Amino acid sequence: MNNNPIGIFDSGIGGLTVAKAVSKLLPKEEIIYFGDTAHLPYGDKSTAAIQSYSIKICNLLLEKSCKIILIACNSASAAAFNLVKEYVGSKAIVLNVIDPAVEYIGEYYSQKKIGLIGTKRTVLSDVYNQKIVELNKSIELKSLATPLLAHIIEEGFATNRVGDEVVHQYLSDDILDDIEALILGCTHYPLIKDKIDSFYASQVEVIDSSEVVAISLKEKLETHNLLSDNKNTIHKFYVSDYTKSFEESTKIFFGEKVILKHYKLWE
Amino acid sequence: MNNNPIGIFDSGIGGLTVAKAVSKLLPKEEIIYFGDTAHLPYGDKSTAAIQSYSIKICNLLLEKSCKIILIACNSASAAAFNLVKEYVGSKAIVLNVIDPAVEYIGEYYSQKKIGLIGTKRTVLSDVYNQKIVELNKSIELKSLATPLLAHIIEEGFATNRVGDEVVHQYLSDDILDDIEALILGCTHYPLIKDKIDSFYASQVEVIDSSEVVAISLKEKLETHNLLSDNKNTIHKFYVSDYTKSFEESTKIFFGEKVILKHYKLWE
Repeated sequence: MNNNPIGIFDSGIGGLTVAKAVSKLLPKEEIIYFGDTAHLPYGDKSTAAIQSYSIKICNLLLEKSCKIILIACNSASAAAFNLVKEYVGSKAIVLNVIDPAVEYIGEYYSQKKIGLIGTKRTVLSDVYNQKIVELNKSIELKSLATPLLAHIIEEGFATNRVGDEVVHQYLSDDILDDIEALILGCTHYPLIKDKIDSFYASQVEVIDSSEVVAISLKEKLETHNLLSDNKNTIHKFYVSDYTKSFEESTKIFFGEKVILKHYKLWE
Repeated sequence: MNNNPIGIFDSGIGGLTVAKAVSKLLPKEEIIYFGDTAHLPYGDKSTAAIQSYSIKICNLLLEKSCKIILIACNSASAAAFNLVKEYVGSKAIVLNVIDPAVEYIGEYYSQKKIGLIGTKRTVLSDVYNQKIVELNKSIELKSLATPLLAHIIEEGFATNRVGDEVVHQYLSDDILDDIEALILGCTHYPLIKDKIDSFYASQVEVIDSSEVVAISLKEKLETHNLLSDNKNTIHKFYVSDYTKSFEESTKIFFGEKVILKHYKLWE
């Protein structure tokens, strides 16, 4: 089972930032990535819709004998993690991108005020807040939905004035006043981490969850004796709807261009 | 049959700008609107995906005895109009949002240079260009994909500096130099028509297709003797995925808040 693949899924190609962090930290692990581009973005969708999409994707990843299923999408982690964990049972270890960030906050920010930015779905779900309250460390979480950011990044405006202005407008919201750290609650956001850092003049720690997620995944594999010793790992990348433009964007998120295969999960 | 409803569909709620223009011009017509919010936005999706969604929606509109099916989405008009027309056959009259704008251009812009802005799907399809070439009036069309605009409008940034800056960056593209008119090739764009007008200092006619579409629909009803004499028209609005945030946005697009009903077409 050790050499079985790690399944990673997301609403689209944003989760490739997480896949990249995993592949960098664990080069011997084979990844099967599924981007649900037919339903992208999840941030606007209802909880029930995201849950049903997630279950269908998990069926595929289980069929492919994944030892781990990592939900590399904050909206899906918020809406569907408990359901997916229950559904998958002992067939695979199910991980999400929220718990590692929350654990990190718990470790370093006891009794502090922390910010979170993410999609509408992630913020409305209140999942980060509930998990932080459970830590019982008097951490105050302030959340703000920043739905335009992912689009800004996908459409190539992240590197110019528009990106600066949108980041500025969102982060100037009163609700984020006096925070000591900010969780990037969307897999797209690591790509504008430098802009956010510069908004805060590095006075606020900006937490890129893709890195903490990869570290937490590695620990999980070690604990369960599931580390792979694959010599040649060939990752596979599937999408539920294929367009040239998705494929071109993979380079932004994965650091190198990847070949997307159209998997007709909904036909 | 005259009092049967007019079916209008779109990838989401943007098509409500068209529904509004129709309802204003033809107050006695009953509208059944379907917004495919489960798959929104269509602008990024593949042709095949949009075609299959469109057929499924048409099945529903035919079941509801619609006399007309109006594809109120440029991406779907570009990707699926011919297929839907063939599929629906004589059961209803099928209209799109592209032909009326092209006819208007043909009438007033012979031998001129015209611009088009729209989603990636609409621009890549080359449908506007093909139809304009068929007019045989030596009209030169220059097209630019402006995918961020719809998101800017949906997320409430249309009325501030970010909206100005994005409009400015897109419309400053060399490809649109020296145009004499600009087609708004997306149902969201009428909401920023004033910004676009002001960019061009009203020296370029900005063509809001929702109005020409409503006029063309009226003519179609007259030609086929299909005008309704309903006393009380109650429009119905369905979406394939329901969220509070979709419902709140209806006001922006339809001018008044409407009650969205969740129709589980994909379950």
